Amino acid sequence: MTTPHARVLDRDTVLCVSLAARPSNIGTRFHNRLYNDLGLNYVYKAFAPADIASAVAGIRGLPIRGAAVSMPYKEAVIPLVDVLEPSAAAIDSVNTIVNDDGVLRGYNTDYQAVADLLAASTFERGARVAVAGSGGMAKAVVAALRDTGFTDVTVVSRNRETGRALAEKYGFTHVVDLADAHPAILANATPIGMAGGPGEHELPFSRGAVDAATGVLDVVAMPPDTPLVRASRARGVEVISGDAVIAGQAAAQFALYTGVTPTPEQIRAASEYSRQ
Amino acid sequence: MTTPHARVLDRDTVLCVSLAARPSNIGTRFHNRLYNDLGLNYVYKAFAPADIASAVAGIRGLPIRGAAVSMPYKEAVIPLVDVLEPSAAAIDSVNTIVNDDGVLRGYNTDYQAVADLLAASTFERGARVAVAGSGGMAKAVVAALRDTGFTDVTVVSRNRETGRALAEKYGFTHVVDLADAHPAILANATPIGMAGGPGEHELPFSRGAVDAATGVLDVVAMPPDTPLVRASRARGVEVISGDAVIAGQAAAQFALYTGVTPTPEQIRAASEYSRQ
Repeated sequence: MTTPHARVLDRDTVLCVSLAARPSNIGTRFHNRLYNDLGLNYVYKAFAPADIASAVAGIRGLPIRGAAVSMPYKEAVIPLVDVLEPSAAAIDSVNTIVNDDGVLRGYNTDYQAVADLLAASTFERGARVAVAGSGGMAKAVVAALRDTGFTDVTVVSRNRETGRALAEKYGFTHVVDLADAHPAILANATPIGMAGGPGEHELPFSRGAVDAATGVLDVVAMPPDTPLVRASRARGVEVISGDAVIAGQAAAQFALYTGVTPTPEQIRAASEYSRQ
Repeated sequence: MTTPHARVLDRDTVLCVSLAARPSNIGTRFHNRLYNDLGLNYVYKAFAPADIASAVAGIRGLPIRGAAVSMPYKEAVIPLVDVLEPSAAAIDSVNTIVNDDGVLRGYNTDYQAVADLLAASTFERGARVAVAGSGGMAKAVVAALRDTGFTDVTVVSRNRETGRALAEKYGFTHVVDLADAHPAILANATPIGMAGGPGEHELPFSRGAVDAATGVLDVVAMPPDTPLVRASRARGVEVISGDAVIAGQAAAQFALYTGVTPTPEQIRAASEYSRQ
């Protein structure tokens, strides 16, 4: 069998990497598969850095073309890059470093992907939106909502400190619990619904709220059909699911690293392959 | 066609690199071919560093398991490693960095390979030896001669400063020209005989000296059959050729990086493949 991303390396092969405390195989498979499908002389390798500052020095010094940055380094790399691009500045978080001839640029393609998907959605801009969560992905979702024209957003988080700070930063409201409210659009930016997690089989909002929603966004990608997504699709509601977010952010990284924008079909194939 | 070193990368794949101002494809092909033949989850990538100190920081920080170090970085990396191993200390030159759980060790496998080949040769230890050259490879050859028991060594170099310094460092003699002397063993550590170089078709010693030699060593590997090697083999003289040196040093690097010593047949196959 020919391997899907068999590649003969030579001295001109361009290296891209990921930096994460606990690397998965998803990025490695997604990028190497697309390099192969598009005939690009690139290779992608995941790293669990021994030291983040030295790792970023290596991006500059070797040089490495690009790096995906994951937990817990998304804030730590901000002082290590030369230019903070608007997508990263919008949420004070870098998930992508691009090395442009020695100039390290920090981007956030999570934010970008969510913003692109929201912009392409038919979600009503004036509708009431609830965002569950107040961590890094919640930041990306709240900022993307604001920047794509949503004006009535409520952050729902039991953590009063981070919840209030996030809501206030973007001029929105924070609540600890939605109580009986039924916002039109529900966005999940918590790990609830994630395979293997404590909330694997749960909904991030009340059953009543889910049954009343007219639009849903879920950032959980493993699995892409969380209980929230399944229940909402069963009701015929427009859903932006986590696999679209993760594929969109990875495709945006891919375009930043290579200058090539893959087709939706190529992204779909690589995205499916990456989760096998 | 199945590529000879097709490799599916995953998060556990170990990266080794080379650092050279002008990388060739030889190391990339040699190591990736052996990883493939031996079923090791490693990948090898050549770099032309933007900044050597940052590149070495990257070895530590990403982390990278090992790095081949070529011109012009063999001295520059000495203060950047944590431990200078005896092979590197012998000639004040590092051509290999091994990252042992964050401890960077500097080795010189050029020296090691020449010493191993001399130790395995039938060259008479008391015979008179002439070494042409006074650069980095001449250092490795002269130190290896001394350390394998040769006592009568003359450094032949038109550069009086580096020639004299090299000879004196190891307690040997320096001459600018061999004149009519005919040493039993001739060692070439200059680029004379190298494909594409100005001395491509020349001998590094006089025709008379070459015709009188009983043993020959040539560090030029491209091509391995230099005029010196061809003339000496035609005379039935024992020859250590540059392809043996380069394969020996690369095999020593391979063993340092992986803990696995390839068989001579595996080294031969990878070495031939690397020069294609």
